[in-house]
Amino acid sequence: MPIRVTVWNENIHEQENKVVADNYPLGIHGTIAAVLNADPAFAATTATLQEPEHGLTAERLAQTDVLFWWGHAAHGDVDDAVVERVCEAVWSGMGMVFLHSAHFSKPFKRLMGTACNLTWREAGERERLWLTSVSHPIAAGLPDHFELENEEMYGEPFGVPEPLETVFISWFSGGEVFRSGLTYKRGAGNVFYFRPGHETYPTYHDANVQTVLKNAAKWAFNPAARIADPGAAPNVPVTEALEPIEERGPRLHHDGEEGYR
Amino acid sequence: MPIRVTVWNENIHEQENKVVADNYPLGIHGTIAAVLNADPAFAATTATLQEPEHGLTAERLAQTDVLFWWGHAAHGDVDDAVVERVCEAVWSGMGMVFLHSAHFSKPFKRLMGTACNLTWREAGERERLWLTSVSHPIAAGLPDHFELENEEMYGEPFGVPEPLETVFISWFSGGEVFRSGLTYKRGAGNVFYFRPGHETYPTYHDANVQTVLKNAAKWAFNPAARIADPGAAPNVPVTEALEPIEERGPRLHHDGEEGYR
Amino acid sequence: MPIRVTVWNENIHEQENKVVADNYPLGIHGTIAAVLNADPAFAATTATLQEPEHGLTAERLAQTDVLFWWGHAAHGDVDDAVVERVCEAVWSGMGMVFLHSAHFSKPFKRLMGTACNLTWREAGERERLWLTSVSHPIAAGLPDHFELENEEMYGEPFGVPEPLETVFISWFSGGEVFRSGLTYKRGAGNVFYFRPGHETYPTYHDANVQTVLKNAAKWAFNPAARIADPGAAPNVPVTEALEPIEERGPRLHHDGEEGYR
Amino acid sequence: MPIRVTVWNENIHEQENKVVADNYPLGIHGTIAAVLNADPAFAATTATLQEPEHGLTAERLAQTDVLFWWGHAAHGDVDDAVVERVCEAVWSGMGMVFLHSAHFSKPFKRLMGTACNLTWREAGERERLWLTSVSHPIAAGLPDHFELENEEMYGEPFGVPEPLETVFISWFSGGEVFRSGLTYKRGAGNVFYFRPGHETYPTYHDANVQTVLKNAAKWAFNPAARIADPGAAPNVPVTEALEPIEERGPRLHHDGEEGYR
Repeated sequence: MPIRVTVWNENIHEQENKVVADNYPLGIHGTIAAVLNADPAFAATTATLQEPEHGLTAERLAQTDVLFWWGHAAHGDVDDAVVERVCEAVWSGMGMVFLHSAHFSKPFKRLMGTACNLTWREAGERERLWLTSVSHPIAAGLPDHFELENEEMYGEPFGVPEPLETVFISWFSGGEVFRSGLTYKRGAGNVFYFRPGHETYPTYHDANVQTVLKNAAKWAFNPAARIADPGAAPNVPVTEALEPIEERGPRLHHDGEEGYR
Repeated sequence: MPIRVTVWNENIHEQENKVVADNYPLGIHGTIAAVLNADPAFAATTATLQEPEHGLTAERLAQTDVLFWWGHAAHGDVDDAVVERVCEAVWSGMGMVFLHSAHFSKPFKRLMGTACNLTWREAGERERLWLTSVSHPIAAGLPDHFELENEEMYGEPFGVPEPLETVFISWFSGGEVFRSGLTYKRGAGNVFYFRPGHETYPTYHDANVQTVLKNAAKWAFNPAARIADPGAAPNVPVTEALEPIEERGPRLHHDGEEGYR
Repeated sequence: MPIRVTVWNENIHEQENKVVADNYPLGIHGTIAAVLNADPAFAATTATLQEPEHGLTAERLAQTDVLFWWGHAAHGDVDDAVVERVCEAVWSGMGMVFLHSAHFSKPFKRLMGTACNLTWREAGERERLWLTSVSHPIAAGLPDHFELENEEMYGEPFGVPEPLETVFISWFSGGEVFRSGLTYKRGAGNVFYFRPGHETYPTYHDANVQTVLKNAAKWAFNPAARIADPGAAPNVPVTEALEPIEERGPRLHHDGEEGYR
Repeated sequence: MPIRVTVWNENIHEQENKVVADNYPLGIHGTIAAVLNADPAFAATTATLQEPEHGLTAERLAQTDVLFWWGHAAHGDVDDAVVERVCEAVWSGMGMVFLHSAHFSKPFKRLMGTACNLTWREAGERERLWLTSVSHPIAAGLPDHFELENEEMYGEPFGVPEPLETVFISWFSGGEVFRSGLTYKRGAGNVFYFRPGHETYPTYHDANVQTVLKNAAKWAFNPAARIADPGAAPNVPVTEALEPIEERGPRLHHDGEEGYR
């Protein structure tokens, strides 16, 4: 059964900026979905900010194995209830891939627990991505480095937690470096951040970038059954303790009571 | 100059439950502050939920090197604006120590990016904490293990990100285990979670626990100057690039423009 | 194509101790290989200390996707050249699963870079393994905890580096805890340590343990092509630099010279 | 009491190469020791390959809080017994700072458990180090980036385990990047790798580099008492179990027996 990917995009610059529209006639979301659908390993669909509930209903998320996220101009317009729903889906086992300016998206900041800030420059300079974790599944089929002739610069320090693994580090012509591929686990969900993808450049048409997108979707996919209530904090009554114990001392809670949350 | 610690407590059970009030006539906050103040390394004060802005104004946080947090019944009553302020203080360099049921507090969940859930049982059973990172500064002066004769049980799986280091793991009479001491870094701020401290037991009067509290405050303290705007994402103009580059390709942003956030 | 597993065992207690021989008429190696071969995902064979080069020639390792290692009484008899060869195979991409007393084996100590020590007690006490990384692939199909009624105790502190992920933590009747499932990456190779398996108990006949063994083999398998020379440190001549640079300043090395190793 | 640092150097190029001798009339070891001794926080001495036992007797290591290591041409001449002694000192709590080409030194490879390889070019190109962990103690007093106008290039992939924290990442004129500052813990010992320091350039005279050296020594220092036998694996007899248990099942070991190592 193919991995079900939903590619989410705020889909704004494609409507308002001719350069972006020319780069991505299908939208960034449509382009990435097409890249994935060219591989029988995936069944990719799209969702955008403009749809009801941004296209991310509970039903849709339940049917999504891996969610891609691209946003830039409209981070603030994403509904907080949808953000919380997305994060709960991640905790329950949905994989998630954040692209480029999604470093400042609400769900990324929510999942990282940090400011997720960086420095930046839009000058079409050269970016060269270096592999730092040899033979990592997200780098399958890639050389030790590859280049994007025109990209926006993102520079360190990048305000994220120390990752499980640093997979890529970028070199920029203007003199900066950036951790461009980072893996995390949040609850049962695998999370990958991938830096490239400024909308005024044709980054998602690059063959190496497309390889990363496909690898990332496979890596982020968790085949385990989705956890029904990923925030459950069940009480284990004394009578059901795995080792025989007797209740001792004063109690705050009464039998059968739920804990505070 | 002593480390300035603010011990925050929701301070509810001390008012409503005789057992808790008898355990902690000074409140949990007052007790912990007194423990710290007995050591000239610290200048500890307290703040509670009931104060204006919960006692955590911007000025107060700016004067706080390390913030301790104890909450249980009233997590939901903590104002979201205060939570955001606390997290920004952490990112700017304030240390933070979360105690026991603060695993479900808003700032802990916000900084972890996960559900922070666990299993639990209030039976006054024995907890034995084992050191898993030898000679860790948070364990200075402690033996390889120590016991609390009566504690609430918290059981794995604990819904937190993989830590920088696991410092303690607890054994419980009823058959569970729990990662009881975990370190994280969030922005410039050091974060420590320490499990023991159920309010109906005299945990914070235990000498070993008090040693951990003092060690944790020292470990969490970051002597670096506080970062003024921990979420800043400055543009680096082409003319100020560290290596000479020329602007190329189409642009989305105009000169001097701020980035989207 | 099935994953090619080689199960290595020192194969000593099976020959000398009736209890062990009765537990494992096929040897621990034969038992584990049979467990794996019952699943078409694997093609498992065995190798033992007594074979020439301990059965681990360069050719054999090149044909091994994942190597399991069980040793206890004869760690010191393992040839250092074989140990180095095994480690190089790991760096080149071979997966490796260390079982129980292999914590003190030469290749495990070599790959960890630490003393790998612990405390222990052989009393047939109950061990209960708790899952600490929900929906981890190594725990696929397992409940949140499972028990082994008779096992040797291993206690913390366990002298290993902080892992990529802690997958299991054990509870013991006698009061200890232990990090029983730990993941590492060394070069291109995935490494998993799994605690249970004392030879006088029938641990490897336990269904849950067998599930872990199979999951671990799948997790440790790296499908990338094996790296030919995992320690290569190539010189990049100035004339082949990716960005045009001119040589400046004094030199220690001459053109075409190999670096020191 | 000052931190006792021993700066170890193979001290070969200083004797054989005029450029290096002119750069470091005191030797690299003497230069670094002088830098540290200019700060009352330290009492630094030196040791070299040419001394009996390379100057690293058991007594000397017992009196060393932090050991710096610089080597390049003579890694193979370092006695294996001294390497093992150094690693045991680290496990027992001695801090260790590896400099530049020490990435291929025996103790570094031994402590990492990997090949520690990289790519390299000696062209006197510009290196710019970027801070990736804001307000990290090893970066105290440093700006977000600093430059070395002439350095040897080291390029990714760097064959080391994922660190506790990545503190610095380097940009090179020729187009490469490198993780230049990495922290590890091995046993009770803090380990830091710092990339710059090719002997034909005056790197250790650079003020920012000197700041890193001093910060690294403070960070690596573990004030805990040194562990007497860092590889001890004590048996815990049934009669001394922390919880009352009875011995069950067959045994391999006899009372009072030491475990296999």
